[in-house]
Amino acid sequence: MPRESPKAWLVGAGPGSADLLTVRALRIIEQAQALLYDALVGEEILALAPHRCLRIRTGKRAGGASMKQAEINALMARLALKGLRVVRLKGGDPSVFGRSGEEKDFLEARGVAVEVVPGITAASAAAAQFGFPLTQRGQARRLLLLTARIQDGALDTSGWAEAAGDREATLAVYMGRDGAAAIAEGLIALGRDPQTPALAVENAGTPAARLMTAPLHRLGEVISAAAPSGPVLLVIGDVAARADDQSSLRVSDLGGPPTWLSNVSALSR
Amino acid sequence: MPRESPKAWLVGAGPGSADLLTVRALRIIEQAQALLYDALVGEEILALAPHRCLRIRTGKRAGGASMKQAEINALMARLALKGLRVVRLKGGDPSVFGRSGEEKDFLEARGVAVEVVPGITAASAAAAQFGFPLTQRGQARRLLLLTARIQDGALDTSGWAEAAGDREATLAVYMGRDGAAAIAEGLIALGRDPQTPALAVENAGTPAARLMTAPLHRLGEVISAAAPSGPVLLVIGDVAARADDQSSLRVSDLGGPPTWLSNVSALSR
Repeated sequence: MPRESPKAWLVGAGPGSADLLTVRALRIIEQAQALLYDALVGEEILALAPHRCLRIRTGKRAGGASMKQAEINALMARLALKGLRVVRLKGGDPSVFGRSGEEKDFLEARGVAVEVVPGITAASAAAAQFGFPLTQRGQARRLLLLTARIQDGALDTSGWAEAAGDREATLAVYMGRDGAAAIAEGLIALGRDPQTPALAVENAGTPAARLMTAPLHRLGEVISAAAPSGPVLLVIGDVAARADDQSSLRVSDLGGPPTWLSNVSALSR
Repeated sequence: MPRESPKAWLVGAGPGSADLLTVRALRIIEQAQALLYDALVGEEILALAPHRCLRIRTGKRAGGASMKQAEINALMARLALKGLRVVRLKGGDPSVFGRSGEEKDFLEARGVAVEVVPGITAASAAAAQFGFPLTQRGQARRLLLLTARIQDGALDTSGWAEAAGDREATLAVYMGRDGAAAIAEGLIALGRDPQTPALAVENAGTPAARLMTAPLHRLGEVISAAAPSGPVLLVIGDVAARADDQSSLRVSDLGGPPTWLSNVSALSR
């Protein structure tokens, strides 16, 4: 039989709960021969790969070392060119702040075919979990996903100063933990009402998720008090007032044994 | 045994392919007793619900009638209060242009508990399918999701004029089929380079997806020539230049019989 041509999958792991993987992602993980995973991808998901699959952690956790992007790229290419089915597993969606473009370019330039599999991004996961929408007719007409650049303690809003002040835009700030106070201050300086509803979610979409809510001008303070150690998504805009801490308790209402996923796993091959 | 308390699930069906459902969504659909679904939710997904599940189409297709939002709300509440497990199935992610806020408010006010289950939104689906990222370090730092309001043939950019012209923002325009020419013209008037890479995807994330690419100033023309009949997502920004028509052919490389999903379905209960 001819050897398979080299291929790698850039797969969105979603927010972290195994049941928020897409069925396609699950199926690809189950057939992986080498899995390169970010720090945000949890044990429950890693356990879905075959026993003999090579597992390589690329992301840092709690101060540990992390691989450089160039090292990850080179390793993926090497493994794929050896003939292994390489799965690059990323928290969220690979296309949204996930560097899928860089990794795809690198791999394709070396003769490795790439397929991208989408994942649930943190904003969608947080919204579903805490029951608030990201858009709302007549209230939140636009959704801006961004990461904040903060220089010398000040928020850099070049290119989006108007959106920052736009009441009809929901802002979803990824990796927002440390910058929240500077972000709030920057937005208020650009015309956002200090009373704008805002929230922060640590570990969005996982059972360990934690919701913090505050008017915008107090967001930094509330986050400091909660001292989250996981990744934090900020959501700023009128929709944040609709967040509902009860929602997180409802996720498991359907019941079923905690091991049900391994049944899906065993049988979808 | 006490009767279950009334509950409805607002579930993201993702772009339309059954294997782009999340595992959680699949599991909830499999236990539905009443399914209210949008026009964009395809047969493959509807077939996952139990045989005896009531199926109610709420969206219009090809000029047929569609239910008003108030009718949908009232019907969901009635069915849930009768004790049925009501699943409201929406294309994409319920929190992104999906009216989840309105439906949740209505149901909760009537004593129906609501759980939202996220789905893959069209922008993520299109990006994965055609291999372009939505953000890219140093090039596309922000992602703005929006629907376009067009009045008297002109694009209304109040609130986002700066973002419209911001080269570092990727714009993803939902429901963009008919307005593409006016959108392009409006963006160019606000300073976007007419040569900005742009694309349109019809039926993003499904096997029937079609990619149309053009520089921004020709986007309307290319869409007119292709005459799409399905829903169209527009993506405008430098990342659009990375779209790769080959990617869509790779999705099924892993093979497997087309019926495999029904196996997952039968066995994950």
